[in-house]
Amino acid sequence: MPRTADSALLRALRGDRPAHTPVWFMRQAGRSLPEYRELRVGTRMLDACLDPALAAEITLQPVRRHGVDAAIFFSDIVVPLRLAGVEVEIQPGRGPVFADPVRTRDDVARLTSIEPASVAAAAGPVRDAVGIVVEELGDTPLIGFAGAPFTLAAYLVEGGPSKEHLRARAMMHADPEAWHGLAGWLAQVSAAFLGAQIEAGASAVQLFDSWAGSLSPADYRAFVAPHSRAALEGLGDIPRIHFGVGTGPILADMRLDGLADAVGVDWRMPLDEAAAVLGGRTTVQGNIDPALLTAPWPVLEAHVGDVVARGRAARAHVVNLGHGVPPETDPDVLTRIVGLVHSLQP
Amino acid sequence: MPRTADSALLRALRGDRPAHTPVWFMRQAGRSLPEYRELRVGTRMLDACLDPALAAEITLQPVRRHGVDAAIFFSDIVVPLRLAGVEVEIQPGRGPVFADPVRTRDDVARLTSIEPASVAAAAGPVRDAVGIVVEELGDTPLIGFAGAPFTLAAYLVEGGPSKEHLRARAMMHADPEAWHGLAGWLAQVSAAFLGAQIEAGASAVQLFDSWAGSLSPADYRAFVAPHSRAALEGLGDIPRIHFGVGTGPILADMRLDGLADAVGVDWRMPLDEAAAVLGGRTTVQGNIDPALLTAPWPVLEAHVGDVVARGRAARAHVVNLGHGVPPETDPDVLTRIVGLVHSLQP
Repeated sequence: MPRTADSALLRALRGDRPAHTPVWFMRQAGRSLPEYRELRVGTRMLDACLDPALAAEITLQPVRRHGVDAAIFFSDIVVPLRLAGVEVEIQPGRGPVFADPVRTRDDVARLTSIEPASVAAAAGPVRDAVGIVVEELGDTPLIGFAGAPFTLAAYLVEGGPSKEHLRARAMMHADPEAWHGLAGWLAQVSAAFLGAQIEAGASAVQLFDSWAGSLSPADYRAFVAPHSRAALEGLGDIPRIHFGVGTGPILADMRLDGLADAVGVDWRMPLDEAAAVLGGRTTVQGNIDPALLTAPWPVLEAHVGDVVARGRAARAHVVNLGHGVPPETDPDVLTRIVGLVHSLQP
Repeated sequence: MPRTADSALLRALRGDRPAHTPVWFMRQAGRSLPEYRELRVGTRMLDACLDPALAAEITLQPVRRHGVDAAIFFSDIVVPLRLAGVEVEIQPGRGPVFADPVRTRDDVARLTSIEPASVAAAAGPVRDAVGIVVEELGDTPLIGFAGAPFTLAAYLVEGGPSKEHLRARAMMHADPEAWHGLAGWLAQVSAAFLGAQIEAGASAVQLFDSWAGSLSPADYRAFVAPHSRAALEGLGDIPRIHFGVGTGPILADMRLDGLADAVGVDWRMPLDEAAAVLGGRTTVQGNIDPALLTAPWPVLEAHVGDVVARGRAARAHVVNLGHGVPPETDPDVLTRIVGLVHSLQP
């Protein structure tokens, strides 16, 4: 990746302190942008993800508008499952819904009989979209995107979104063999999806384990971390970001023994505390509170300044929100944050 | 409370070790029981809460069926707001929805112009229901029920349920004066609601701050804890339980400087760790993982045994779930847990 190697993002992920602190926003590509909403009219979410020109354009919109330091590939965590032939739809206002929830040992056997290599074979539209994006981005890096095995399983076992992911967490204890079969297969699927994005030119990857914070540390270590590690191993020499929400009690575990170059931190834990937990060996990413995006600018400005100041306690810092951009966010506020972060002493 | 003073629950809340570990279940009264679903046909949630005979019967059903060590008053956290004249409905499958969200300084002024004493004045049906319950319960204690100011505000400011409570959390920083006005008023409303239940014979109270875990510790201390303390102060000599979900990082704060006799712990944090954080001055309540209620009995049995064993590290222990009974729970499993807990060495 000669063109992006000296970018602020890649330097921060390697543990350097670039001239300005890099900043991007989870869900920057998508629902908060009027140009996105216009482009999406009449196209269903998963169809948009698999239309190379459309996915590329959506990925690029926030880079042009905000001047962020990275693009994140526009996709959805269930896209690799769709590529594997699993029947799934994104229902607006609800989320991913599966025609056949995966609840029993037989359900798991049926699903995992699908060869994970079929994801790579069907990922042509993803490779094409990434190719278009990387060409236009030049020396701005593209971050590849995938859901982690537990968060994918939380949807698959329930059959759709759920609050406390009871059915997936139940399977871990009620039938550990089925659970490990499912999560191990999902790890291969995520790895195949990330691999396709890397082959086509992504400069880094982020694994989204959004719901990992619903687990006890003991369950996280026994039933989840090994599979997240498997999803990120074997991708070659590429920087890896690992993200979850409410993960304070498992933050050190999310380093995956150093496999993760950066760990995402949500708005609950100050970055200097996160840096102390991570032990100075890991870059921190975060953690502007999405709730403050609607506050008066002086309040938000002070908060962003505090986030950057606390981030100095880590070996390096990538500024981001603590979770995704809320749909009703004023995009001008995001642009203003980019300018502010770039103006601050790293 | 002469009749309930020697009950296992009250002894555990005072820090004693009764002959058996007391056990009850959050949401034991309600949706998981067929006799409840039958009784509720044709009656809306808030109407059921304010029908004394119906609310009393629903409160008593799980005590008769499971032999739990306490009743929890059947109600909803928005009932005191309804008593204050606020327009609110419970939409099945969604939750409380307010006709007029409370978002601006003017909205707050309009709401808080309602005298909190009006809640006490309108609480006749609550007092009547509690009177019926206490009469039938005899020496089994009734726990009074109320929502905490932050969790109530999370619904009020949003106008309904939300995932990360962005609008309420935004108000804290965007307009701290409006926030403190709202939360201070809600504290008085909760206190009035608990006061009515205590006057009519409740032997203990539990304050539900279900969404407190969405806050950073700094925000919890500055914007929430003082109001939860205000809700629980001034209730006289009554044991107080304080509960939230995902509260590991703020567990010590939830003691409210010792005002809480017991702190609820969800399934994420083992009770021996919770006891260490709470410092031996507080009873722990919890923390069977609701996900395990569907596991084969030997798995659940081992888990309950582990919960009871870890609870021995605390000054005293009230067994409960880590969060409310899921609607699809088999009630026989709950009855079996009660028998198991009662058979175990405290």
